[in-house]
Amino acid sequence: MLNLSVLLEDSARNHPERAAVVLGPQRLTYAQVNAAANQVAGLLRSRGIQPGDKVALTCPNLPYFPIVYYGILKAGAVVVPLNVLLKGREIAYHLRDSGAKAYFCFQGTPELPMGAEGFAGFNEVDSTEHFFLITADPAAASPIEGAETMGAGLAGQSPVFETVQRSETDAAVILYTSGTTGQAKGAELSHSNLVLNALTCNRLFGTQPATDTHLLVLPLFHSFGSTVNMNAGFSTASTLVLLPRFDPEAAVQLLQSENVTFFAGVPTMYWGLLNALKEGVDVERIAANMRIAVSGGSSLPVEIIKAVKERFGVTILEGYGLSETSPVATFSAPGHEPRPGSIGIPIWGVEVKLIDGDWNSVDNPDEIGEIAIRGHNIFRGYIGRPEATAEVMRDGWFRTGDLARRDKDGWYYIVDRAKDMIIRGGFNVYPREIEEVLLTHEAVSLSAVIGVPHESHGEEIKAFVILKPGASATEEELVAWGREQMAAYKYPRVVKIVESLPMTATGKLLKRELS
Amino acid sequence: MLNLSVLLEDSARNHPERAAVVLGPQRLTYAQVNAAANQVAGLLRSRGIQPGDKVALTCPNLPYFPIVYYGILKAGAVVVPLNVLLKGREIAYHLRDSGAKAYFCFQGTPELPMGAEGFAGFNEVDSTEHFFLITADPAAASPIEGAETMGAGLAGQSPVFETVQRSETDAAVILYTSGTTGQAKGAELSHSNLVLNALTCNRLFGTQPATDTHLLVLPLFHSFGSTVNMNAGFSTASTLVLLPRFDPEAAVQLLQSENVTFFAGVPTMYWGLLNALKEGVDVERIAANMRIAVSGGSSLPVEIIKAVKERFGVTILEGYGLSETSPVATFSAPGHEPRPGSIGIPIWGVEVKLIDGDWNSVDNPDEIGEIAIRGHNIFRGYIGRPEATAEVMRDGWFRTGDLARRDKDGWYYIVDRAKDMIIRGGFNVYPREIEEVLLTHEAVSLSAVIGVPHESHGEEIKAFVILKPGASATEEELVAWGREQMAAYKYPRVVKIVESLPMTATGKLLKRELS
Ligand SMILES: Nc1ncnc2c1ncn2[C@@H]1O[C@H](COP(=O)(O)O)[C@@H](O)[C@H]1O
Repeated sequence: MLNLSVLLEDSARNHPERAAVVLGPQRLTYAQVNAAANQVAGLLRSRGIQPGDKVALTCPNLPYFPIVYYGILKAGAVVVPLNVLLKGREIAYHLRDSGAKAYFCFQGTPELPMGAEGFAGFNEVDSTEHFFLITADPAAASPIEGAETMGAGLAGQSPVFETVQRSETDAAVILYTSGTTGQAKGAELSHSNLVLNALTCNRLFGTQPATDTHLLVLPLFHSFGSTVNMNAGFSTASTLVLLPRFDPEAAVQLLQSENVTFFAGVPTMYWGLLNALKEGVDVERIAANMRIAVSGGSSLPVEIIKAVKERFGVTILEGYGLSETSPVATFSAPGHEPRPGSIGIPIWGVEVKLIDGDWNSVDNPDEIGEIAIRGHNIFRGYIGRPEATAEVMRDGWFRTGDLARRDKDGWYYIVDRAKDMIIRGGFNVYPREIEEVLLTHEAVSLSAVIGVPHESHGEEIKAFVILKPGASATEEELVAWGREQMAAYKYPRVVKIVESLPMTATGKLLKRELS
Repeated sequence: MLNLSVLLEDSARNHPERAAVVLGPQRLTYAQVNAAANQVAGLLRSRGIQPGDKVALTCPNLPYFPIVYYGILKAGAVVVPLNVLLKGREIAYHLRDSGAKAYFCFQGTPELPMGAEGFAGFNEVDSTEHFFLITADPAAASPIEGAETMGAGLAGQSPVFETVQRSETDAAVILYTSGTTGQAKGAELSHSNLVLNALTCNRLFGTQPATDTHLLVLPLFHSFGSTVNMNAGFSTASTLVLLPRFDPEAAVQLLQSENVTFFAGVPTMYWGLLNALKEGVDVERIAANMRIAVSGGSSLPVEIIKAVKERFGVTILEGYGLSETSPVATFSAPGHEPRPGSIGIPIWGVEVKLIDGDWNSVDNPDEIGEIAIRGHNIFRGYIGRPEATAEVMRDGWFRTGDLARRDKDGWYYIVDRAKDMIIRGGFNVYPREIEEVLLTHEAVSLSAVIGVPHESHGEEIKAFVILKPGASATEEELVAWGREQMAAYKYPRVVKIVESLPMTATGKLLKRELS
């Protein structure tokens, strides 16, 4: 029997007075977070929520997130974290698709009225019986008519609760996959999946209990932040400093003032941090405290690795995985220099291989194949979608849709997502490679490469580029420069200089919005 | 999906050339052990063994033990390790009770003819279809007529095998509990139970991969050695130096010559080591290498902790558990001075409480109750014995039969096994306490206290005592001395001086043989 909430409970038992979460001036200890989570569990039980029931959660990175997350788990229920940007209709879809019985939703802000969207979505779905509005001030009256506040619900609930034990293989969390393609599907992760992924992270990071301070900027509704910062961090009694919305300047301030030792982010966040090292920032102090920097979620440009090493004195460790893999599947090899551009080697207890379209393995060094993964981190399946599950699973192996090559020492290199690959005049072109080349141009700060339809070649290569502050280059110059750097079938015939690029809430470039 | 064999496989992948097992001059690397285990798995599959089938194993601490153990696991089958001292009839009982389909058995020696006993037992049981005799020399012809050797079976098997994935909750190992009372029952431990116990050990010992050398003297068929030395050791690519039969002089020689860093033993083994520090032993060298010393399995006398600290420079860490708890359940608190006489605090992810006969919890500091345990380490149940399982399990809690108290800081102290408690004239007397007092007498080296029937008091207290070499004391003197040290209802009215005390194969005093 196992419950993922044990990660919190053990730290609350051994380090009750240590700060678990910090938000601005607010600090909650492990004992306090655990007690509040116990109240949430008590509330759910009092409303008839049974072990195995699904409970949805919409909440930015506030102390409420872990409190409700572990509270749902303690009650034996399954957490369904939702993207905070969803609209009412989308929320209704997720509530219905997951079969959520109850729904906790943060009130939001005037710019992002999560509470109103959430309540609208909730009202569309009969099978979701309970709605709890999380208000910024727990004592506040409900700002939404007809919606009960969580604060009101928790009043009178005991801070003690005997956690419901679950089977290791029972679902603990349902993560809706980012949905950059197709309809969002709920990946069911078990208690064992998520406990072992957190413990393996600790092994990778060499974390000693009650020593680390994380700056938490990854959204907690996504697998990367919830495992690497929250579950792994809580299991080692780390302190999580929350920044509800990633803002590079604010992040740099917190790195400095909170003596942060651990930072995990997607590549664009590192890019943001580097650009925010303005005058007045004590970069030396930040570098002196920083122990571990982790990147994942999308490919890490080599130029960023170099710059972070130079400024913060740490080598970014790169990990790779998907919501379906808990998420960490590969990681820079412990005790070895990371290899720039590589996602590392399989983590403890996980196997990786490359396959072709028919699941045959692709074994030659540097040959490109699709990544398939097997081990303790593979999800149970997509809830309610046996066919979609069967499509990606065979003999315990999960096929990821990501293309990669393996060098002769067994390190893996993502070349691209299978569906992102551009085919120009019969040649395979991997956008990632073109982006890496563009980043070596002195005027280029960020780039995104896509395929656009083309009459005779099938697809043509197009690059979007953000220039460095103060730098100048014309689109024509960049096309010409690219022609010198790359093979004729590869270089972008079209370059567009832009001020910004569309990103998902998890900080990934949203290429489908480019054209 | 999970398979306990991942502990070996991961180390073979990352540290293929490191020595996994050492036996005298023989050294096998992780790659070699893994390849041999793959052959065992291939052999089992070729004979029709299916995932979930049970396969029994009788083998002393030889390299064959881990090879066959992980080989059975790789095939998806369940390992049933048997005590090497069992006789033919007892072996037949275990094969039948577990439903073993195949049986690997070491040939033994003239003094301990395991192979002959094993083959006799096998021949009594129709449901056990395959017998493989493990010969000391794998190329040797079978010394037992009609018995196939494992060496012959492995010939031609591929050193590569794709491990069968199992569910986390599936049984991995069935441990027959020591059977010092009643009929031996098979405790089913899952893959998750044993993986999490090994990983939690690594956290407790602060083990870094590929750095430790274990002296392995605990029998591998028992939970203590198989988890703490073999599974935890293999999962961190430690080197295991095997000593098939515990002999204090030989053990001390190996501590010295192999630069051992990690020793785990039952208290009587520490007692043996201390007595073997004769002239010519380089105690300083031993102490300089020794990093971790662990004791468990039975109560560790405070006098031994002191002496080990003095001679080997390490403080023995004490753990507690049972076969049914994977086994580690409590352990000296990491980062705190161990408290002499205490079994420590619950390990990561495990809860402990004290209960009375009706499962009500006993909460006052220092009050005595029976230890109950809940968490990731609790077994699935006794195979084929739903009633026996139901008797000891409630709401995920497992009652251990061990009596203990908890101090105000939450540290636990075993007072005795419920069934060992002596009731003299209505007073509860805990043998452990009396033994500790006797050990403080300058002439006493080891002692065992039991209850013997008494007309008027119900039970009377009787002590068996081994004297220190060269010391002299009479039985009457010891009775008189005891009367001065202890309350009238406690001190042993009868003391018997003996040369040796009966022990189980796992090094525990076998009190039921005393009277
Ligand atoms: N540290 C310890 N102190 C006292 N008794 C122990 C300790 N560890 C294990 N035991 C005893 O060993 C029993 C388990 O035996 P086994 O199932 O053979 O491992 C427990 O129920 C305890 O009675």
